[in-house]
Amino acid sequence: MKKVWHNLMVDAPSHRYPIYIGSGIFADFALLKAHIGKKVAIVTNDVVAPLYLDTLQNALRDNGVAAFAIVLPDGEQHKNHASLNAIYDGLLRHHADRKTTIIALGGGVVGDMAGFAAATYQRGIPFVQVPTTLLSQVDSSVGGKTAINHPLGKNMIGAFYQPQAVFADLDTLDTLPERELSAGMAEVIKYALLGDSDFLRWLEANMAALMGRNQAFLAQAVLHCCRMKAAIVAQDETEQGMRALLNLGHTFGHAIEAEMGYGNWLHGEAVAAGCVLACLLSERLGSLKTKDTARVRAIMRQAKLPDAPPVFAFERWLAHMRHDKKVESGMMRFVTLSALGRAVLTPLDDVRILRDALQPFILD
Amino acid sequence: MKKVWHNLMVDAPSHRYPIYIGSGIFADFALLKAHIGKKVAIVTNDVVAPLYLDTLQNALRDNGVAAFAIVLPDGEQHKNHASLNAIYDGLLRHHADRKTTIIALGGGVVGDMAGFAAATYQRGIPFVQVPTTLLSQVDSSVGGKTAINHPLGKNMIGAFYQPQAVFADLDTLDTLPERELSAGMAEVIKYALLGDSDFLRWLEANMAALMGRNQAFLAQAVLHCCRMKAAIVAQDETEQGMRALLNLGHTFGHAIEAEMGYGNWLHGEAVAAGCVLACLLSERLGSLKTKDTARVRAIMRQAKLPDAPPVFAFERWLAHMRHDKKVESGMMRFVTLSALGRAVLTPLDDVRILRDALQPFILD
Repeated sequence: MKKVWHNLMVDAPSHRYPIYIGSGIFADFALLKAHIGKKVAIVTNDVVAPLYLDTLQNALRDNGVAAFAIVLPDGEQHKNHASLNAIYDGLLRHHADRKTTIIALGGGVVGDMAGFAAATYQRGIPFVQVPTTLLSQVDSSVGGKTAINHPLGKNMIGAFYQPQAVFADLDTLDTLPERELSAGMAEVIKYALLGDSDFLRWLEANMAALMGRNQAFLAQAVLHCCRMKAAIVAQDETEQGMRALLNLGHTFGHAIEAEMGYGNWLHGEAVAAGCVLACLLSERLGSLKTKDTARVRAIMRQAKLPDAPPVFAFERWLAHMRHDKKVESGMMRFVTLSALGRAVLTPLDDVRILRDALQPFILD
Repeated sequence: MKKVWHNLMVDAPSHRYPIYIGSGIFADFALLKAHIGKKVAIVTNDVVAPLYLDTLQNALRDNGVAAFAIVLPDGEQHKNHASLNAIYDGLLRHHADRKTTIIALGGGVVGDMAGFAAATYQRGIPFVQVPTTLLSQVDSSVGGKTAINHPLGKNMIGAFYQPQAVFADLDTLDTLPERELSAGMAEVIKYALLGDSDFLRWLEANMAALMGRNQAFLAQAVLHCCRMKAAIVAQDETEQGMRALLNLGHTFGHAIEAEMGYGNWLHGEAVAAGCVLACLLSERLGSLKTKDTARVRAIMRQAKLPDAPPVFAFERWLAHMRHDKKVESGMMRFVTLSALGRAVLTPLDDVRILRDALQPFILD
């Protein structure tokens, strides 16, 4: 049954647009039509396509929209220039022009790549996000960060480019593998840790319902995260300041993903371990207690997420983190916690503190 | 001798920045310092580097700025993804971060690529334009269009991204090959044709002095073109309307460049022939007289530019023009002239009119 549970606006300085959170909404032409043109390129991947592509394509075609599909291989390891080029080639082959709308149908990888293609094809064409994973619904589809990876760093090439609208359809979470559901939950927990201790308590109390895919609870969690993100993006669209706090766990997480090979650790799994490391670093800096970190590890385990990173050489940790986008004039900067529910951006020039925090996870 | 002849502001909605027009200014740290950070990546090519790279790099290093160079192969045929990747690799190898400034030292190809790299590296870092050709001084360095070519279309991948400042140093025109000077003059003439018949008369009267590189006359021409462009960009940064008029001669010109192979016809040469074709099309549409076209051909010859395009099959003309960025919902749109000095954007769905206009240049 079609139902819009929630509808909120993102007031980014460059563009104002709605997020629809609901069930059975992603192929609802009555909702879609205000946000698309007469020609649509659906960018998706080979896992999502068999599940949802026909439904969306038919809804568009039945209403006189010329819709064609560009299907990419699934996985973070394909978030690269080859896939981006496949999107450009598809757009050109179908004579896409500046009025053509891209619909990104898939998870964070599809959304980030389709968004970057939209930002750069003919210097920018409109696009719509249809996130089909929990991770993309609560985080990556909102706020206009688009990117591809570079062998030397995650999301190193990209643009800030806002979508016309976001359709978070909770029904699509029914087909999500549990490992992916957990990965999305890592970002949900991240929001609680960085900015809302009440939300953390709510998550601790209701994790079983969330992991059981109770739609009312999921709708509540997606809404809460999107509201937090929208509030931050409205104030700092291009990450000059507080938006960096959304990167809690990501400096460590990106290092884990790069070191283990993109796609081996899911982004959310790496963020979960990264959040634990951010807690350990905060302990070293004297701003968090051991029992706080234990509480974070416990909720990660509740969500079936890793509560510790893999072990590798300190030089490798450092090499990856020196490419972090928060590095400023050579100085590394970490999102740390001054309390559970309160993140701060912390410059760190003494790598010994970092080594101490990472000690259990350093291969000598 | 260092001298700033003119100094004007571009009031783009997204960013306000100065254009300095002068002699001996590109390595003047007193002027540069307000527009750069503590670390600078100079992007240039293997023709410009031997002439000007050391001067700029020393001026920066002598003043405590960490400056490194990324040297690309020269030519439109290298305005592609391989060169873009070489810029990304150089930035990453030198640990460029979000505070690093890119300086584009070269002509339009260098400026467009360095600008696109700046727009997309870590989702955007600051950049400064130091255009060293007439074409880039009057046109491509101003207004924030950045791009690379795709095999199927010129400037097909890009972004609108404004520089921090533009340093148009007329001294650098002394080393410009005459063919490049002429190519730049095509864009100068384009400005006159699209919007200023007085300027057209001034160019007709003073072309000998301009082609003789009289610096006072060149300064006047560069200032006039930059003023026209700045006025248009202030009103229409992302080409929703009147900015398209700056594309006079470019739909035909891009077709010529693509058909002949990038780098064989210089961009300015193709634009010169394209402007003549725009006149012929305007004649067919009844808005221009034969003697107007003759006058345009004459000034092109004065500037040692082609006054006619190469000959190739109509299907090839069409194939290239169907990828033009002005195509909207499948309809081609051409910049035509309602008089010399007055351009209009004209949708065209009847290809027979186009075939008639191109008739002498169609290979049967």
